[in-house]
Amino acid sequence: MDFLRNAWYAAAWGDEIVPGSLFRRTLLNTDVLFYRLRGGGVVAMDNRCPHRFAPLHRGKLIGDQVQCGYHGLEFAPTGVCAHNPHGDGRLPARATVRTYPVRERLGVTWIWMGDPALAEVAAVPDLSGLDPAGFSVNKGYIFVDANYELVSDNLLDSSHIAYLHPDLGSESVTQGNTTIERVGDAVRVDRFMPGERLPRFLDMVYGMNGQLVDRWLEVSWQPPAVIEVRISVAPAGSVRADALQRPTYHLVTPETDWTSHYFWSSSRDFRHDDVALHGMLQSGIARVFETEDKPMIEAQQETVGRFDMGTLNPIPLVGDGGVFQARSILRKSIAREAAARAGGGDNRSAVAVGRSG
Amino acid sequence: MDFLRNAWYAAAWGDEIVPGSLFRRTLLNTDVLFYRLRGGGVVAMDNRCPHRFAPLHRGKLIGDQVQCGYHGLEFAPTGVCAHNPHGDGRLPARATVRTYPVRERLGVTWIWMGDPALAEVAAVPDLSGLDPAGFSVNKGYIFVDANYELVSDNLLDSSHIAYLHPDLGSESVTQGNTTIERVGDAVRVDRFMPGERLPRFLDMVYGMNGQLVDRWLEVSWQPPAVIEVRISVAPAGSVRADALQRPTYHLVTPETDWTSHYFWSSSRDFRHDDVALHGMLQSGIARVFETEDKPMIEAQQETVGRFDMGTLNPIPLVGDGGVFQARSILRKSIAREAAARAGGGDNRSAVAVGRSG
Amino acid sequence: MDFLRNAWYAAAWGDEIVPGSLFRRTLLNTDVLFYRLRGGGVVAMDNRCPHRFAPLHRGKLIGDQVQCGYHGLEFAPTGVCAHNPHGDGRLPARATVRTYPVRERLGVTWIWMGDPALAEVAAVPDLSGLDPAGFSVNKGYIFVDANYELVSDNLLDSSHIAYLHPDLGSESVTQGNTTIERVGDAVRVDRFMPGERLPRFLDMVYGMNGQLVDRWLEVSWQPPAVIEVRISVAPAGSVRADALQRPTYHLVTPETDWTSHYFWSSSRDFRHDDVALHGMLQSGIARVFETEDKPMIEAQQETVGRFDMGTLNPIPLVGDGGVFQARSILRKSIAREAAARAGGGDNRSAVAVGRSG
Repeated sequence: MDFLRNAWYAAAWGDEIVPGSLFRRTLLNTDVLFYRLRGGGVVAMDNRCPHRFAPLHRGKLIGDQVQCGYHGLEFAPTGVCAHNPHGDGRLPARATVRTYPVRERLGVTWIWMGDPALAEVAAVPDLSGLDPAGFSVNKGYIFVDANYELVSDNLLDSSHIAYLHPDLGSESVTQGNTTIERVGDAVRVDRFMPGERLPRFLDMVYGMNGQLVDRWLEVSWQPPAVIEVRISVAPAGSVRADALQRPTYHLVTPETDWTSHYFWSSSRDFRHDDVALHGMLQSGIARVFETEDKPMIEAQQETVGRFDMGTLNPIPLVGDGGVFQARSILRKSIAREAAARAGGGDNRSAVAVGRSG
Repeated sequence: MDFLRNAWYAAAWGDEIVPGSLFRRTLLNTDVLFYRLRGGGVVAMDNRCPHRFAPLHRGKLIGDQVQCGYHGLEFAPTGVCAHNPHGDGRLPARATVRTYPVRERLGVTWIWMGDPALAEVAAVPDLSGLDPAGFSVNKGYIFVDANYELVSDNLLDSSHIAYLHPDLGSESVTQGNTTIERVGDAVRVDRFMPGERLPRFLDMVYGMNGQLVDRWLEVSWQPPAVIEVRISVAPAGSVRADALQRPTYHLVTPETDWTSHYFWSSSRDFRHDDVALHGMLQSGIARVFETEDKPMIEAQQETVGRFDMGTLNPIPLVGDGGVFQARSILRKSIAREAAARAGGGDNRSAVAVGRSG
Repeated sequence: MDFLRNAWYAAAWGDEIVPGSLFRRTLLNTDVLFYRLRGGGVVAMDNRCPHRFAPLHRGKLIGDQVQCGYHGLEFAPTGVCAHNPHGDGRLPARATVRTYPVRERLGVTWIWMGDPALAEVAAVPDLSGLDPAGFSVNKGYIFVDANYELVSDNLLDSSHIAYLHPDLGSESVTQGNTTIERVGDAVRVDRFMPGERLPRFLDMVYGMNGQLVDRWLEVSWQPPAVIEVRISVAPAGSVRADALQRPTYHLVTPETDWTSHYFWSSSRDFRHDDVALHGMLQSGIARVFETEDKPMIEAQQETVGRFDMGTLNPIPLVGDGGVFQARSILRKSIAREAAARAGGGDNRSAVAVGRSG
């Protein structure tokens, strides 16, 4: 399976990469080693010593260098072999580990697994809702035993809420006004549900005491699989600017062709000091993803088998426009990259995707 | 692997399909959803919503319709989409799930996975020994991690009893008079063991108090894998019409190429009210199948690997004629079906197999 | 994957094949049954009845014959069917199981899985360090989820000791004087470490009380994967003839292309009656192999994937000459065998490998 290469992928929540320790995660079928420099930056390199192919995460960190646990070769943050303890200590030619550009922004560690020359720092997604200055943030990680696009599909399509998530939606979701819009390589699916009564859990979260509300779900997808779902809730008939805001992020990164890393967050601009609410959101959101979305997406994958769903002629409903547009944009972006590679390696002329808003 | 398609396969014991709930079973490599109509009949359809390929068994039953658990589409017993909760509610064209003919007879749920036009009700196997009017019935289900023909082989060949089942047979089995007969597409293997002393367990079952008995084992196989083993026991020298009768059924249905569903039953026409005997038979038979036949058949499959055993040149013994005939009949029936399909879809001229009696 | 066929492979420690019982082990992708004759010798034959392919280890031993557990055919130590309990008892033609030459020497059961005509008894490895007359012997068995050559590589390369085994070596190992020598089809890698201080565990083993010692590690590999590591330790500056000797053997046999049997032993010519030392060596060596070598080798295999490492262009260090030579010799030996087979079956002209000393 071809992945989009020239794009920033979420590799980890920053706090998963603990100072002084080696962190391993497979991304895009590639086993990657991460560690944190003493200065705070993060290094990503192939998790494989070029000598005998031992995985480097079984070694140890010595200052800013990683020492292979099998024969003790040490590699600098650039991936170059910097110490050979054997014989005369000469550094073996070619003994270099491939490294990957990494950037951290607002608690997310991003990796670029394509042409390093195209890795624009400006294109690192700017998820402003993760800024602790304005928001209280819940977040988590879920492993999904399914292709990453099935996770994107799920998020681009809020029409499933009434059926898969009885605690989060009712028929107002299926009847809401939906608009689908393409903005460059991004897709927006907005759904407006005026004058509905919130399910009990959400009514508690927003403190609406059972009154009728207006609710907006604004989904923004950008390649490869960076999704914001901005939820706004206000008493029915209010001015929208007064609505309570919950920007949520859903960063999906392929582990392999058929498995995915799913980093989720949920931020709120209200009730910052409500510790009980914070805990309830943490466990409630994790429960919904773990026990409702993940099992359904994995069951879908099992039913689809090892095929690209897009090739199997699914029957579209009215709300599926966003799903189809996103899949189409991604296919074209991947094909464009392949064509640029085939065209003589002049990758620099290819347009990097992933630039945020 | 090609399976015989135009035939009735045992899909379930009827009581496995509980009113009000969805039942999933893979048959012939196909994931099938079963449910019971309010009127009592059983519906079978592909366990896959045509919208986003969610498995339908994760949804729920609403009256006689199944509602997909992902986006709420509802399907009628005919497989046609009957309700779309989204947008204007228009029913999407092509949104139809494939259904399969089903019939129930004497507690067995049978499915026809070939051309529906060829599904003759008269051909549903009539397992008269399951009729509670004449018999007390024990029954069970065993999953076998092996190809279904290995299970048929095992049943067609009672010569293994003395070795695999020390509680059920002795050398009288290997020395019994055996006749092998072909009747249409069915195969009969009869074995008569005159004047033998029964093993202890069987002596108890038949209440023979250690006296010499005559025993008949009559095995009847019909394609694809419907097997009756009728056991008759009488004091040595009795008139056969006076023998105690135990008709047993062994219905084997491929789950996949390499795994099988095995439905077994054992009926008796004597000691109907003996609760202790009934319980002893239930646990005793299940124990023999689970701890003796199943492990040996699975070990055989492991040794054979993923090959059709018939292609591996096994060395036949005197008692294997039935096994070879059944395998040959099945190969020819499958080839005949394939030829009929290739011949322009005029499937109706093909002869349906599976007609009982 | 082609294995060297005309060679003796360690199949088992002799005491694994217990009189009166059937022992199964897969070797070179072949399921083999072992049992011990009443006279003490060991029989090895394909673990598969030619009748219905039941694995014979599910049967039982009757005198010197194995009885299949499915239908009771009995096979003699030559593999010929010797008893058929069915019908007239005629022995079916072709009902012969393939057998393999076996020899036992000093507690090791060796098997020859190539052309039996080439199986020279003189070529059975003579591991004199296993002779209880001169040595106290610890030994064990480890299953390794990796190709057997990765295990050989690990043993041919003592430079890893300082990193993978902190209890067994220090930087003196990486700086020791190393010589690599080819002797016929065998490879020797000797490392001399003069005037080092032993790690605590080894200091205890040799009773050196912290004084400086001279240490020699002499590794001898012969195809396919029979390795001796002879360790000698003496107070620094001693005459070598006075050193304490620990010959250790490492017999690696492919189970499948990607899994291995690893038989290890460690003998000593000192402190024979020291029961505490004996126990400490047994658990200490097993712990090092199980928790240090095995996990690293398996991690290496996982990283390499299902490729022959030699084809992946690993970057050599100064100590890797032995590894590369051994791999090259093995490749050539296997190719020579293949050429001999292709050349018309005149296998007898091929030179058997594995001749010891």
